[in-house]
Amino acid sequence: MKLQIALDTLTLKECIELLDETKDYIDIVEVGTPFIIEKGMKPVKKFSKRYKDLEILADTKIMDAGELEAEIAFKAGADIVTVLGVTHDETVQGALKAAKKYGGKIMIDMIGVNNIEERAKELEDMGVDYICVHTAFDIQSTGHNPLEELKRVNKVITKSKTAVAGGVKLETVDEIVSEGVDVVVVGGAISNASDRVLAAKQIKERLK
Amino acid sequence: MKLQIALDTLTLKECIELLDETKDYIDIVEVGTPFIIEKGMKPVKKFSKRYKDLEILADTKIMDAGELEAEIAFKAGADIVTVLGVTHDETVQGALKAAKKYGGKIMIDMIGVNNIEERAKELEDMGVDYICVHTAFDIQSTGHNPLEELKRVNKVITKSKTAVAGGVKLETVDEIVSEGVDVVVVGGAISNASDRVLAAKQIKERLK
Repeated sequence: MKLQIALDTLTLKECIELLDETKDYIDIVEVGTPFIIEKGMKPVKKFSKRYKDLEILADTKIMDAGELEAEIAFKAGADIVTVLGVTHDETVQGALKAAKKYGGKIMIDMIGVNNIEERAKELEDMGVDYICVHTAFDIQSTGHNPLEELKRVNKVITKSKTAVAGGVKLETVDEIVSEGVDVVVVGGAISNASDRVLAAKQIKERLK
Repeated sequence: MKLQIALDTLTLKECIELLDETKDYIDIVEVGTPFIIEKGMKPVKKFSKRYKDLEILADTKIMDAGELEAEIAFKAGADIVTVLGVTHDETVQGALKAAKKYGGKIMIDMIGVNNIEERAKELEDMGVDYICVHTAFDIQSTGHNPLEELKRVNKVITKSKTAVAGGVKLETVDEIVSEGVDVVVVGGAISNASDRVLAAKQIKERLK
């Protein structure tokens, strides 16, 4: 199981400090959507040069122009690019075309998808690499958590890998690990921890 | 009716050349999603300083973290920020909160929304400024056009303004104008025209 750290609200300099400290426990560095809106592909370029042993994910949440937008991110050095599960099949297929060209991977963000089982199966059949169940930041306070959706996806897919995101922390990671997942995405539980190295180490140790 | 020019595939320098030529016929400058993915808020900052008489729209297509992401764009100088209609209500409300703080506006992109009438009414009730029917770039070749969806939205809304996007050109603008709309979004029909000033002028003249 891989640990993906989501970087959303830090400056580029703060991200580098955090990654330099925690990189031994991190597998995938996520350049989050707010970070991309603010800085474009600059952090992707920077991290892909500096952390050659880590994979870089660009959380572009692509909704249209799949091939064009995924290509921008892969060209900048992303290994994995995200596409929204609610988008048209044509957009997913366009992004997969760009992934093939650059030897990259596509992760689908299932945020806002209602027919989870049906859509997960369709996406797997299209050949996406990862299906990520994701409790939106904006609804985390309502008590939602992504475990229930992970179970629903795990029941129907056989080839795609899975990822889980949305408020994951040390206290909730064990049940996710027990359910089975390939990538665990953690944000604030590491970046806002008083001891960030310890937080990353402890979570990484729980991933089997 | 306003004319919005969508800038997606040009460099910053090329955009400035195009805008300097056509600005007399343009009301809203759209920094397109691929442009944001590549450059972040740099074009928004640049255009908002250089074209003080034009409104600047950041096509962020927000899907989560509505307040945070909209705030990044408004802070950079955007007058209008886009949010996806398929997102959670909480995300729309967060973006509206940021809009209120900065005196900006929210345009909803209806791309991928299936229950158009119901969702348009919900969004209007939340207080969004614009509802934009949008035929995705990735499905334009299948013959879809946004006029049909514009008619469906016009039937149910009474307060929000409307916008239309997705392959609009001189040959299709008249029927959109007849149907009634507040903002017409045009991309390639201006930026790829052999005479871009003439193309912008001709389309602007059709808008009543």
